[in-house]
Amino acid sequence: MAQTNPYGPNPSDYLSNVSKFELIDSTLREGEQFANAFFTLEMKIKIAKALDDFGVDYIELTSPVASDQARAEVEAICKLGLKRSKILTHIRCHMHDAKIAVETGVDGVNVFIGTSSFLRQHSHGKDMSFITKSAIEVIEFVKSKGLEIRFSTEDSFRSDIVDLLNIYTTVDKIGVNRIGIADTVGGAHPRQVYELIRTIKSVVSCDIETHFHNDTGCAIANAYTALEAGAKYIDTCVLGIGERNGIVPLGGFMARMIVADPDYVKSKYKLHKIRELENLVADIVQVNIPFNNPITGFCAFTHKAGIHAKAILANPSTYEILDPADFGLSRYIHFANRLTGWNAIKSRVEQLNLKLSDDQVKEITTKIKQMGDVRPLGIEDVDSIIKNFHAEVQEEEEEKTDATAATEEEPATKKQKVSSE
Amino acid sequence: MAQTNPYGPNPSDYLSNVSKFELIDSTLREGEQFANAFFTLEMKIKIAKALDDFGVDYIELTSPVASDQARAEVEAICKLGLKRSKILTHIRCHMHDAKIAVETGVDGVNVFIGTSSFLRQHSHGKDMSFITKSAIEVIEFVKSKGLEIRFSTEDSFRSDIVDLLNIYTTVDKIGVNRIGIADTVGGAHPRQVYELIRTIKSVVSCDIETHFHNDTGCAIANAYTALEAGAKYIDTCVLGIGERNGIVPLGGFMARMIVADPDYVKSKYKLHKIRELENLVADIVQVNIPFNNPITGFCAFTHKAGIHAKAILANPSTYEILDPADFGLSRYIHFANRLTGWNAIKSRVEQLNLKLSDDQVKEITTKIKQMGDVRPLGIEDVDSIIKNFHAEVQEEEEEKTDATAATEEEPATKKQKVSSE
Repeated sequence: MAQTNPYGPNPSDYLSNVSKFELIDSTLREGEQFANAFFTLEMKIKIAKALDDFGVDYIELTSPVASDQARAEVEAICKLGLKRSKILTHIRCHMHDAKIAVETGVDGVNVFIGTSSFLRQHSHGKDMSFITKSAIEVIEFVKSKGLEIRFSTEDSFRSDIVDLLNIYTTVDKIGVNRIGIADTVGGAHPRQVYELIRTIKSVVSCDIETHFHNDTGCAIANAYTALEAGAKYIDTCVLGIGERNGIVPLGGFMARMIVADPDYVKSKYKLHKIRELENLVADIVQVNIPFNNPITGFCAFTHKAGIHAKAILANPSTYEILDPADFGLSRYIHFANRLTGWNAIKSRVEQLNLKLSDDQVKEITTKIKQMGDVRPLGIEDVDSIIKNFHAEVQEEEEEKTDATAATEEEPATKKQKVSSE
Repeated sequence: MAQTNPYGPNPSDYLSNVSKFELIDSTLREGEQFANAFFTLEMKIKIAKALDDFGVDYIELTSPVASDQARAEVEAICKLGLKRSKILTHIRCHMHDAKIAVETGVDGVNVFIGTSSFLRQHSHGKDMSFITKSAIEVIEFVKSKGLEIRFSTEDSFRSDIVDLLNIYTTVDKIGVNRIGIADTVGGAHPRQVYELIRTIKSVVSCDIETHFHNDTGCAIANAYTALEAGAKYIDTCVLGIGERNGIVPLGGFMARMIVADPDYVKSKYKLHKIRELENLVADIVQVNIPFNNPITGFCAFTHKAGIHAKAILANPSTYEILDPADFGLSRYIHFANRLTGWNAIKSRVEQLNLKLSDDQVKEITTKIKQMGDVRPLGIEDVDSIIKNFHAEVQEEEEEKTDATAATEEEPATKKQKVSSE
């Protein structure tokens, strides 16, 4: 197949899962570690149902060991009988935690342990042979209960590559479903991600899940690049909420993926629910949707410069890689400013159902730009200028045919014009 | 040199400019195309001075052709005599625009023209031979005036690669200072960026500037990857403001770069001014700093889960790739919640200057987690629990030595305890 979409999967990535990725949403686990998150069971149920409706493949929940209430919540969410999303819980690589987790009704267990020298020294203080022994014990136990099991290293990018390959090949051999690779501190960059994931992919047969923090702004790009290298599962949170400034945001990641494979993404996820889902979570954790959020930021589909507006009016693809209609949203041509162009104003004239020649529209555009130099303009300002201009033009034409009638209309029009400038 | 920083420059990228990049800040050009931007001259001067103080290498301004006021503003900013930043203006590839631009006092001119089939068809309607002819005429004219000149294609990633290589090699031969590669629609991803930039780098001797929009959340990662491939200049805006949801944000890009080369970044840019610069621009364009903004988001250095808090207390590098002190900020251990751990509470006990054994701290931690299951906790709640517990412990000890004195103190303490729960 010829590569017609320059943003699509790269045919040279034969291990790529760009066109068959799955989502593990962690809003109810990583997201609970967000500074502002205090989730009641009622809130958790609302979020879980909305995620299921949107179509995420898995929902990850806080460890039932965290507190008595956390355990009760995991059990309650498992009993909801969600239609589409499987339920996971995220626990330390301890038999104590695993025994509690398998009793809650989850479909699978995500275990993790830190393997970087930082975490081995300052967090749990265990060496690699101890880590390997615990991993085998926990994995075999969870599998014996018939549940899915993922084994993840924390801070994978600062871990010794030999340690990583040893532990991943070991757990792969004993039949783990997925291994997880985590950029716990948010410092990884895309080509580094590609190299590590491709190397690991070459030595294991199980699936690969990834978890990218966003401290240095690369979480979405790292997740995409991980898919190119053969990872299949991406951890996301609604609005990216999590420890510090969070992880891969679900909405932003959808923006990335719909560009790469529109058919797959649109067939699998209800994209027009993104705004509702984000508003739900934003309300609960009491934050505003960031002004520059992909897709749902207030200006994500607003075009302002004259040169952009002109081309967008001719064909939206010129300055839009995302179609707002795919998300149940619409575009907006911001024509009321000094950077406007006559094409944008012509479009507004047509929306107002008025008839003016191109030269007349250019004349109005000059007036609008002059006013825009002096102060911020609203749509009503521009409309008023257009309507007054149109009225004057009509008057002049009427004057030519009927001088008397035109004179009567003049005073009202003039007054209106003054008030608008 | 051994690679000691896994997030640093990749030694195999021999063309990499990760350790010698320069910034072209476009807050006063691309940023002016942000939906909410209405900059007066006074605001522009404030922003320009703050950018100069921070240390950006270039400041790009809106075309003087946009309006009469725009031209007056370019002239006024050129007269400021900034210490560090050179001034550029961004114009269409037209002799008409170029003649006006060179008279304003700028240090250089950034010209652009659309080369994608979308833009050639729906924007300017010109073919490649016309584009080449205009480019040569404009470049030779600007150079004859002794100014720097950059030639950029718009929407480079949807342009024909043969067209791109032809035009870039042509303008390189006639001595352009920089060529610009732009992801105008924000759809590019990192490995695609790496391949295109490296290919272009192999056929030109001039410097390469890049301009990445953020529609699919990859702008920072794309900019970083462009440097790896040999680009040298990165366009940024404060908070990333620009058309739609904007471009590479200056602060987020600094987060990315300080991880890659801390010495270079800290020696060149005043990182502790980022917050002030972002607040200035946010106030002017009337937006809030996004809750999840790199570096300056309200929780960028907040640690919540017990396991994170414990390790951070032992060594901040365990869960921090950025040091808040580099940006004049401080970290915060969020201990007042049900995910807390006893290490975080122990640290709080020490901050309060109280003495308790580890077992006693664990007992308090259980109480705090139980209360955190019921409702959101404030610091004062936790402090109150700790202080009451400490008071009780002291009472018990005092009772052992002096039964009478302890009895007198009891009623007040009990009352205080009830009110805090």
